[in-house]
Parts: sequence; C-alpha cells; structure tokens
Amino acid sequence: MLLGRVAGTLVASQKEANLEGLKFLVVRQLDVDNKETGGYVVAADAVGAGVGEVVLYATGSSARQTVLTNNRPCDAVIMAIVDTWEVGGTEVWRK
Amino acid sequence: MLLGRVAGTLVASQKEANLEGLKFLVVRQLDVDNKETGGYVVAADAVGAGVGEVVLYATGSSARQTVLTNNRPCDAVIMAIVDTWEVGGTEVWRK
Amino acid sequence: MLLGRVAGTLVASQKEANLEGLKFLVVRQLDVDNKETGGYVVAADAVGAGVGEVVLYATGSSARQTVLTNNRPCDAVIMAIVDTWEVGGTEVWRK
Amino acid sequence: MLLGRVAGTLVASQKEANLEGLKFLVVRQLDVDNKETGGYVVAADAVGAGVGEVVLYATGSSARQTVLTNNRPCDAVIMAIVDTWEVGGTEVWRK
Amino acid sequence: MLLGRVAGTLVASQKEANLEGLKFLVVRQLDVDNKETGGYVVAADAVGAGVGEVVLYATGSSARQTVLTNNRPCDAVIMAIVDTWEVGGTEVWRK
Repeated sequence: MLLGRVAGTLVASQKEANLEGLKFLVVRQLDVDNKETGGYVVAADAVGAGVGEVVLYATGSSARQTVLTNNRPCDAVIMAIVDTWEVGGTEVWRK
Repeated sequence: MLLGRVAGTLVASQKEANLEGLKFLVVRQLDVDNKETGGYVVAADAVGAGVGEVVLYATGSSARQTVLTNNRPCDAVIMAIVDTWEVGGTEVWRK
Repeated sequence: MLLGRVAGTLVASQKEANLEGLKFLVVRQLDVDNKETGGYVVAADAVGAGVGEVVLYATGSSARQTVLTNNRPCDAVIMAIVDTWEVGGTEVWRK
Repeated sequence: MLLGRVAGTLVASQKEANLEGLKFLVVRQLDVDNKETGGYVVAADAVGAGVGEVVLYATGSSARQTVLTNNRPCDAVIMAIVDTWEVGGTEVWRK
Repeated sequence: MLLGRVAGTLVASQKEANLEGLKFLVVRQLDVDNKETGGYVVAADAVGAGVGEVVLYATGSSARQTVLTNNRPCDAVIMAIVDTWEVGGTEVWRK
C-alpha cells in the first residue's frame, strides 16, 4: 500500500455498467515524510474518505478485494484512513 | 486508475483469436493538472470513447473485469469517460 | 498494452517444464511516435511475429490469457501485430 | 520480492472491515548493497517483524497468499525476515 | 520476463510457513545489451540456477505458476536459464 492525500473528486457519468455507485477520488501520493511525490492515482473510495484526508490505498487485483469493488474494473482503492504513522521513533502524521 | 486523453487509434488484424472485436485506442497519460506526462498506454475501449476525450483507464487484471475484455489478453481498458474533476476546490476539467 | 519492435530471439533449454514449446522474443518498447524508449521485455509469441515487426504486448496476469500461455509462468505476451496506428490524425506507422 | 528495512508503524482505525487485525509497517526499500533507494511501501506484517529489521516483501496478488492477508485488499506483505544475503561472494548483511 | 544475472544468495529462516523449501536468489537486472540496469529482484529459483548465470525471471501472479511457487506469497521466479540471445542479428550472450 502507499500513502496518499485526497486532493479532489472526479465525476464520470458514461462508464462501464458495473462501476455504478463507485465514488472516485483523486489522490496525491505521499512519501514516508508526508511530502507529495508528484505521483497520483484515481481511486475508488471504500471507507468514506474526505478531501484533505491522509489515506492508504491498494492497487492491482488487491483493489478488488472490497465489497464495493469486487469484480469491477477498478485497479485502485482507498481501504483505510490513516490515524497516525511514525518513522524512526518520530511521529510524522496524526489525524 | 489513471487519467488519459485519447490520442488516436490502432489497427491490428493479425492477433490472438480471442481479441476479435476489441477496439484499441492510443491514450496519452495525464497528470492531475491535465498535463501530459509523456507516458501512454494502448487500451481496449469499453465505453465508446472518441479521439480527444478525457478518460479513466484501469490496468492489470482489473482491465479484464468488463464484459468486453473478460478472459482476454488485455491489460488496459478505458472504463469511464470523465465529465469533470477538481483538485483543491478548483475545477481542472469539464467535458 | 504497449507498443514494441521485435529486436531478436532468445533460447533457453533449461526451464520450468510447463514452458516447453513457447517461443521467446526480445522486444524493444516504443513510444507513440515510434521511437524506442530504452525499455524492453522478453515476451512469449502468441501470433507468429518476426524480427523487425511492430507488435502489441500485454503484461502481468493478462499475458496468460492466450491458449499458448495459459497457466504458465509467463508475464509478457505478444498478442497482436500492428498494421497501423495514428495519433492526432497523422499516421505514425503502417506495416 | 524486494529488500526493505522496517522504518516504523502505522495506525488506521477507520478501514475496510476485512482488514481488521492486520498490522501495518512502513518499510523503506533497500538495494542489494543494503542502501536505501528512496522508495517505500506500507506492508502488512505476516512474520512478526520489528522496527529496524531487514525483511523481504512481496507485492501484488502474491501479497494475498498468506493466511493473514488472504482475500483482503492488501497489496504488500512482509513474508520473511532476512538472516543474511551475499552478493559476489561477499556477505552484505547478517542479522 | 526480464533478463537477469544471479548475483548472490539470501537466507531467511523466519518466514511465512508456506515458503518452506524455496531457495531465494539475488538477481541483478540486465538490459538487452547484457549490461546491468541497477535494478534487482529477489526471486525464487525454479530451475536450479547458480551464481553468475544469466536467467529469465517472471514477476507478479505469473511467478506463482510453477510447481514450486504455487499458492505461495512469492512475486518473482527464475523460470529459465538463458542459453543465448541475439539482437539485430548479433549474438549478445552465449552460455
């Protein structure tokens, strides 16, 4: 999984039928020091994340292992909202 | 999923038998600011996207989770046409 | 899928038993302007491609969705020979 | 698999239901000379690794092939703690 | 698949139970000209490769399609030892 910050929302009305009901969020990737890497992903939201929140997202087939994304053409999912993480004994982020 | 702009079309008559009927599009990858990254993918089209349209595409095994691509040797699919997305409260793109 | 040009052939006599009969080709990756990117892949050939031909290849689990590669430890397959593609209304390649 | 050093821990209370009980660790990627590459991953811990330990992690669908991660939206798992490795006849790391 | 040279061995006694019996090798990635790219992978050995040998390795779920790696948390496998490859009509490597 990688760390990301929810940067915004995306709307797509014309889509594969079995994507109905999925909410798409634009997520900027973060490094372990909570800095943006420049990378991003558009992910389905499985946890009710809001803009600005720090999240964990999974990609590939693992992104389909949620009730919401099962059997859907979805390769990225937000599967957790991060409360806190620490690196080298120092807290980097707290919600 | 990643953002892309449909840049063109591709024709391949000599191909694995079970690819018959798939339409291939050349897609330039976009970043969250709607700029081209230099990356690209050739994707199967599951939504009837046209050249110039901004789309969302999925890769890997998730690209096979559409009626069109199921059980086929296809690792990228356009699964949505983007209406709009916003980042940091600002609308970046509207169709 | 990505575009590639078949650059050469590879022979491996000592291999996992279920790879018997697969033909391996060295493929240089191309960008949408038909220039080499520097990347490459060694792919199984599912379509009878020859050296010098421009092809489309799939990677990951999708590379196993051909009769030839099914259930084999193969993560890249040439699944089409490209006749032509165009970008921005201009033909980039014709076989 | 890639080499990594466990750099820290991560807590996420709001998450996909089937992630309950997984421990997440922040892992810095190492190269074959035991130097940090700058890359990282947040991985589920399947072996009881501690901060500072050198580990091996698997990604993608292979990350779900442990008792702990089976059928869960998890794309990275620590599946071994490294005792030692050598390159070119020289021991690079010993626990 | 990608080309690699077996650079060394790795020992991990504390690991996921179903990894028992797998031999791990440190593999440096090669380009089509037989030069090291700087990349590497730790792969399970399915063919009895020795240090110094040039091999072909598969990654992702395809790495589990061998008798040895089936259903195991393993995302890279050496599935062939390379006898020879040629590029542009010139032999680059012969065992």
